[in-house]
Amino acid sequence: MRYAVTRRNLLLILTLVLLTASLDVRLRGGTQEGLLDLVDVKGNIRKPPEYRDRYRVLGAYMVLDPTSMVADVPKSNADEVHYTYATPGTAEFYRKNRRFADGTVLVKEVLSTSHAQLTTGDAHWATETKVWFVMIKDDKNRFPDNPLWGDGWGWALFKSDAPDKQVATNYRKDCLGCHLPAKGTDWIYVQGYPVLGAR
Amino acid sequence: MRYAVTRRNLLLILTLVLLTASLDVRLRGGTQEGLLDLVDVKGNIRKPPEYRDRYRVLGAYMVLDPTSMVADVPKSNADEVHYTYATPGTAEFYRKNRRFADGTVLVKEVLSTSHAQLTTGDAHWATETKVWFVMIKDDKNRFPDNPLWGDGWGWALFKSDAPDKQVATNYRKDCLGCHLPAKGTDWIYVQGYPVLGAR
Repeated sequence: MRYAVTRRNLLLILTLVLLTASLDVRLRGGTQEGLLDLVDVKGNIRKPPEYRDRYRVLGAYMVLDPTSMVADVPKSNADEVHYTYATPGTAEFYRKNRRFADGTVLVKEVLSTSHAQLTTGDAHWATETKVWFVMIKDDKNRFPDNPLWGDGWGWALFKSDAPDKQVATNYRKDCLGCHLPAKGTDWIYVQGYPVLGAR
Repeated sequence: MRYAVTRRNLLLILTLVLLTASLDVRLRGGTQEGLLDLVDVKGNIRKPPEYRDRYRVLGAYMVLDPTSMVADVPKSNADEVHYTYATPGTAEFYRKNRRFADGTVLVKEVLSTSHAQLTTGDAHWATETKVWFVMIKDDKNRFPDNPLWGDGWGWALFKSDAPDKQVATNYRKDCLGCHLPAKGTDWIYVQGYPVLGAR
């Protein structure tokens, strides 16, 4: 038995296959995803939706006796945990190239903690998110007139009272100070992220 | 113009499409991956290769003044960080069903730490892995005669002096004691894993 397939139908099938593959790439994320989906033409930055499922954890810092990083977020009495999430593929690219790919998106959560004496010792863990920092790697200086872009990154800040509202106004004033000790590693505290190291 | 496609060729095309889809599922991991790839017919458990890239971080604990969890690993003078990785989809399934899917694989790393006074406070981060704990969810009591399987899980232990050698002999003796406080949540310290919570 033989089926007759017209050129039009063959093209339709090929188109569907390609669309499916492209959708799959989108769903899995990619380094360009940040720039396409999270940044508008003026350089305004959105917080990536569902990053906890769609991104990958690079690592966590535990900060004892933390200072207040953001002017009107009161100094915490408790310790903090910071989790950093990155677009899929970030670690693999970094291990190979020792740098972040253009378009890489990083989300750093600052969380409150609880702790208890468990079987392993005095165990501390993260609870509620207080603040989100978002950074988007920009090799091309895409928004030279936007004060949230510079030094190779777009910079953004979101707080738990309005989690979707970007509130930084100038990355030099609002962000860069805390990153100065990490200037030599492109402003990122890479030493705390085990997946970025050689293994 | 018309192409003639035999039934055999059509079947070949369909088979290739299905194989590609199946390969994709394998590469992304899935809840059955652990049982297929990591466990032999007797229930011996391998440490999942490349879990840092292929699995997802559920969360991290910082343990201050840790006790020694494993008999011949000396008590550390320094603090520890524990990272837990899980097969892809674990968190999504858990949020929906409040339980771990059959076949879920968890890898808990116990790491040494460094710390420094950084701009945020006294920051601690993970360095070298000392020990790995691997657990594989087993709803079906697959290996009733293997002393590393029971209470709904397969249990395994690997140490940094021989990272691929499973060294636990009996989960009741080697593993369960430390998990007693988490018995009510299927032996897992779920409170420390933000992605498992409602959001």
